[in-house]
Amino acid sequence: MDAERQVANTLVFNDPNPLPLVMGDQLSEFTLAYETWGELNKDRSNAVLLFTGLSASSHARSHPGNTAPGWWEGMIGSGSGLDTDRWFVICVNHLGGCFGSTGPSSLRPNSNRRYGPDFPPLTIRDLAHAANRMIRSLGIDRLHGVLGASQGGMLSLEYAACFPDQVDRLISISATGRTGPQSIAYRYVQRQVILNDPAYQGGWYYDTDQKPVGSMAVARQIGNITYRSRQEWEDRFGRGRTGSGYSYGPDFQVESYLHHMGHKLAHQFDANSFLLLTKAMDLFSLGYGFNSYREGVARIKSPSLIMGVGTDMLFPVDEQEAVYLALKNEGNDTQFRQLNANSGHDSFLVEVEYFGTAIQDFLRR
Amino acid sequence: MDAERQVANTLVFNDPNPLPLVMGDQLSEFTLAYETWGELNKDRSNAVLLFTGLSASSHARSHPGNTAPGWWEGMIGSGSGLDTDRWFVICVNHLGGCFGSTGPSSLRPNSNRRYGPDFPPLTIRDLAHAANRMIRSLGIDRLHGVLGASQGGMLSLEYAACFPDQVDRLISISATGRTGPQSIAYRYVQRQVILNDPAYQGGWYYDTDQKPVGSMAVARQIGNITYRSRQEWEDRFGRGRTGSGYSYGPDFQVESYLHHMGHKLAHQFDANSFLLLTKAMDLFSLGYGFNSYREGVARIKSPSLIMGVGTDMLFPVDEQEAVYLALKNEGNDTQFRQLNANSGHDSFLVEVEYFGTAIQDFLRR
Repeated sequence: MDAERQVANTLVFNDPNPLPLVMGDQLSEFTLAYETWGELNKDRSNAVLLFTGLSASSHARSHPGNTAPGWWEGMIGSGSGLDTDRWFVICVNHLGGCFGSTGPSSLRPNSNRRYGPDFPPLTIRDLAHAANRMIRSLGIDRLHGVLGASQGGMLSLEYAACFPDQVDRLISISATGRTGPQSIAYRYVQRQVILNDPAYQGGWYYDTDQKPVGSMAVARQIGNITYRSRQEWEDRFGRGRTGSGYSYGPDFQVESYLHHMGHKLAHQFDANSFLLLTKAMDLFSLGYGFNSYREGVARIKSPSLIMGVGTDMLFPVDEQEAVYLALKNEGNDTQFRQLNANSGHDSFLVEVEYFGTAIQDFLRR
Repeated sequence: MDAERQVANTLVFNDPNPLPLVMGDQLSEFTLAYETWGELNKDRSNAVLLFTGLSASSHARSHPGNTAPGWWEGMIGSGSGLDTDRWFVICVNHLGGCFGSTGPSSLRPNSNRRYGPDFPPLTIRDLAHAANRMIRSLGIDRLHGVLGASQGGMLSLEYAACFPDQVDRLISISATGRTGPQSIAYRYVQRQVILNDPAYQGGWYYDTDQKPVGSMAVARQIGNITYRSRQEWEDRFGRGRTGSGYSYGPDFQVESYLHHMGHKLAHQFDANSFLLLTKAMDLFSLGYGFNSYREGVARIKSPSLIMGVGTDMLFPVDEQEAVYLALKNEGNDTQFRQLNANSGHDSFLVEVEYFGTAIQDFLRR
């Protein structure tokens, strides 16, 4: 799925009002791209908001306006985990992203100049507030549910904490309640790869011949290691070779896989969005701006389902369990489910049936 | 410890004879830098050969000729793990390295031209054969012991398999018997960072103003993540900030640590050596060139001590246990010891007393 197909025929929410940002700046106006599946019912009580991971667009499922398969194609549809016979599913491209929402690659208002690296610092909370504006614009006062995995799982938690009276159910998958140092370390080195690339040009590469695609590919490859698991790769690649012979390039099969994965994303994703949104993940804590982490957790009032995978190395399952225990400690009606699959952090994209059943059951409660 | 202090006053073994290499090339002559501690006894039966990890020099301990602390300072000395009252300890800089041994940064024989990126492909077996030539040159027919950690642990296994009648005891720490795909993946992305750096200049950066130090720093930082553990960093750094404020640079304390670690090595280590030796690690399997992994393991005749650490993410402890079980299956007199420290792969540098006691006991058996 190339970048053009990810922004084809999305819906667009334009907010002409300023959005104050947690770190002190503001956006004078902003746009969010989103897509929907199913029908909003008469009393507007059946909406489910889906947040994406770091690099996905709002195109979670194919639809008549864009028939390319979405990133969670099997999860959304009639009778699926996100059952479109019952729910009006809305997927939004992150504020700060590059698939139709306002981000560093966008033009500044009333200008032909891009934000570029001058885009103001964003936090997960800012992304949640922007999404809430879009939800309110649809006349939706309460969401039947909010959910997401990875960065989307952080956003779901934050959304439920920021808008406790507007959320009826919360599902957070393979995320964390506060980002830890090893996870920060991975994203730090990803960013250094990009920042050191002369083609990055201090972030002003847009209207030049050179783009930082080489470094974006390597940054993605670092991510790819953390998205899957050693166990999966032992089974899938082992010590298999490509047959190309001794080289520093793709010689082992696992190297060929990384080469492919890295270069695929490098041509789709804006480097400045990558820097901005990975940093937002590093800053994330449910306690951010509150007096304590506990206070952030205690703000969540809706029943919650917290899910994780035993082989996740980016947000290890004990972090999801810690969120569950913190919620339980505050009296939240919470459940924890752990899947022991070997596809690691990305399991939500692989084990769609498992997650679909759990999501369906929880939304129908 | 800067590069100059790592090559100060080493001993030098020059071999004027060709060294045939596993991948088909040969070196027409070669040099190894090494250092020794203790005294070789009259019947030359008390020598212990120590192989280093990827990036260390032969300077494992201070001595009158070089008083800078060595990389395993607390392990070597009178009454220490490698007890110099009993053993003649020899530490060698890898063939292919950059601290006095022949490697890509060396001049070709009878030439003022460096090998550079044209240095022939090396395997762990080549490093073992080169070291064996040096050992034989000292009139040592049998080693009392061979040991090492990480890449040195691979080398110890390989040395014992190649020269089963010349090794009386084998200690392999935090290594593997055959490198797996996730470990290959980390080194692949490390290499891509360097290869993509314009300052790398296809490997011909030596006599130019630009050196690939920026990319070497990032490559090292990727390594640093795999050398320690999430558990350690949670305790040590948590979500602590440096106080510098929002930036893509060292903002969190863990980022400041990585910044420091990366730039420290970048000015010491030759990028071509890094590429060559990381690739040698990827290619490593005890079965390489034999009919099977089992045949490679079965060649090891000396009693063996295999050690690992529960939090090692680069060579997880089940890989050391697998080596132990494979050796046991072949009737080897083998022991396995697992340390549950939180300093990960690097624990051998941190938990010197634990490893020292185990090494001392095993060498005195």
